[in-house]
Amino acid sequence: MKRKPLILLTNDDSIKAPGLRFLIDIVKPFGKVVVVAPDRPQSGTAHAVTVNHPLRLHQIVKEKDYEEYSCNGTPADCVKLAFKVVLKRRADFLFSGINHGTNSSINIIYSGTMAAVFEGALAGVSSAGFSLADYRPEADFSSSAPYVKKIISEVIRQKLPVGVCLNVNIPAIPEKKIRGIKVCRQAEGTWQEDFVERTDPHGKQYYWMTGVFIKTGHGKDTDEWALEHDFVAVVPVQFDFTAYDAIDPVSSWFS
Amino acid sequence: MKRKPLILLTNDDSIKAPGLRFLIDIVKPFGKVVVVAPDRPQSGTAHAVTVNHPLRLHQIVKEKDYEEYSCNGTPADCVKLAFKVVLKRRADFLFSGINHGTNSSINIIYSGTMAAVFEGALAGVSSAGFSLADYRPEADFSSSAPYVKKIISEVIRQKLPVGVCLNVNIPAIPEKKIRGIKVCRQAEGTWQEDFVERTDPHGKQYYWMTGVFIKTGHGKDTDEWALEHDFVAVVPVQFDFTAYDAIDPVSSWFS
Repeated sequence: MKRKPLILLTNDDSIKAPGLRFLIDIVKPFGKVVVVAPDRPQSGTAHAVTVNHPLRLHQIVKEKDYEEYSCNGTPADCVKLAFKVVLKRRADFLFSGINHGTNSSINIIYSGTMAAVFEGALAGVSSAGFSLADYRPEADFSSSAPYVKKIISEVIRQKLPVGVCLNVNIPAIPEKKIRGIKVCRQAEGTWQEDFVERTDPHGKQYYWMTGVFIKTGHGKDTDEWALEHDFVAVVPVQFDFTAYDAIDPVSSWFS
Repeated sequence: MKRKPLILLTNDDSIKAPGLRFLIDIVKPFGKVVVVAPDRPQSGTAHAVTVNHPLRLHQIVKEKDYEEYSCNGTPADCVKLAFKVVLKRRADFLFSGINHGTNSSINIIYSGTMAAVFEGALAGVSSAGFSLADYRPEADFSSSAPYVKKIISEVIRQKLPVGVCLNVNIPAIPEKKIRGIKVCRQAEGTWQEDFVERTDPHGKQYYWMTGVFIKTGHGKDTDEWALEHDFVAVVPVQFDFTAYDAIDPVSSWFS
C-alpha cells in the first residue's frame, strides 16, 4: 500500500487565522498533515528569517495523521524548523494560506505566505500558496473550497516542475460567479506609499506607512486581469531572479 | 548646466556599518547624496515592511550636497520613506551596501540590501546593490573601490533597462588578484539549516538557527563561479517572478 503523502501547512496570518483553519479542513483528506504556523500575525514579513533570536516551538495537537505547532518566528522560519526539527521524513507537499488578502502582482515580494512557499520549493518540495481577495478577519472562504481542492489535487497528482511553485489568488465572490481557473503571469504593479506624519507626546515626529496598490499593467495574460474578471489566478513562480535579457547589454558595459 | 544626479544610499547592516561608510565616500563625487539607512542591523529582514509600528526618522547630517538620516525600520522602509518624505525630488539612482557578506545565488531572497534595490527599481529608479564576501565587521573594503566606482559610473552613464537592477558581489581578496567584472546569472543554491536545541532555565526548549550554504549548481555562467574564480559578479535581476516555461504545462492541468 502506498504511503500517505506528508503535507506541511503554514501561513503568515498566524495559527489562529480562519484562512488557515479553512485550509486545514480542505487538506486533511489528502494525507498526513502537519501544521507549523506563526504564533502571531506576520503579514509583510516577506522572506525574513530569525538568526539573532531563539525560536520556540509549541505543540498544540498530536494525532496519528494530524499534528499542529505554533512558532514564534516568521513563515520562512516555520518551514525551516518544520523540515529540520518537526517532520520525521521529507515533506511531499507544502501549502500556505489561505491568506487574508491577495498576493497577486508585485505583492508576492512582501508576502510571508509566498516566502513559505519559496522555502518549500527551495527544498525540492512541491509547494503552492493560496490567497483570498479579502483582507478582513471575517472573510468568507467558502466559495474558494472547490478551487483550492482542485489545485491541491492536481499538484499532488502531477507534481510541479523543479524550481517552480504556485501563487494562487482567489476572487472574494460567490462560488457560482467564479468563472474558473486561469494560469497566468505576474501583473506589473507597484505600491504608492503615503506616510501619515504625527507628533508624539514628547514632541517628536513619527510616520505611519499607508499606501495604495497601483496596477501599471494588467493585460489579459496577468493575475490582476484574471481576478478582475472573476477567475482564480494561478501564477507559476520561480526563485531564479536573473534578468536573462539584460545579461548581454550589461556585459557590453564592461567589455 | 546639467543638474547633479540625486543619489539615495542605504544598506541593511545599519547606518554605522563600515561598508556603508565606504560606499558613501565612493559615491559622493558622483552627485548629491542622501543616505537613509536603518538605525540597527537588519540582515535577514528580506523585503519586510513595517505597517503596524510607527517609523522614526533621525537627521544626522544636512549639508548642501550631502544628507544623512537613520530610520528605525527595515531597508525597504528606508527606501519608501526616503522617496516620499526625505527627498524633495525623484531620486535618479539608488545604491545599497556595501554589505558585509555575499548576497550571491539564492541569498538574494533573504537580503535586506537587495530588497532596498528592488524597491528602487520598482519605483523606476536605476538601482544596484553591492556585497563583499566577508561577513566580519572589520572586513577590508579597499580592494573593491575601483570596481564599485566603475559599476556606479556605468549605471549613471548607461541607465539600466526598465524593471532590471543589479546584484553585485565582490570577492574579498587583494585588488591585484581581482580578475575583472563578470556579468552572470544567479547560481542554484540552498541553505542546509541546522537547529541547535537548548533548554532555558525554566526547562523549556528553544532553537538557534544555523546553517551552511550549499551550491547546487555553479556553472561558468553563474555568480558563484565568478566569485570562486576571483571575478566581481554582476547579476542583472528582475522582480517579475513568473516561471514562463511552466505556464503551458500547468495550464494543461485545468483544461
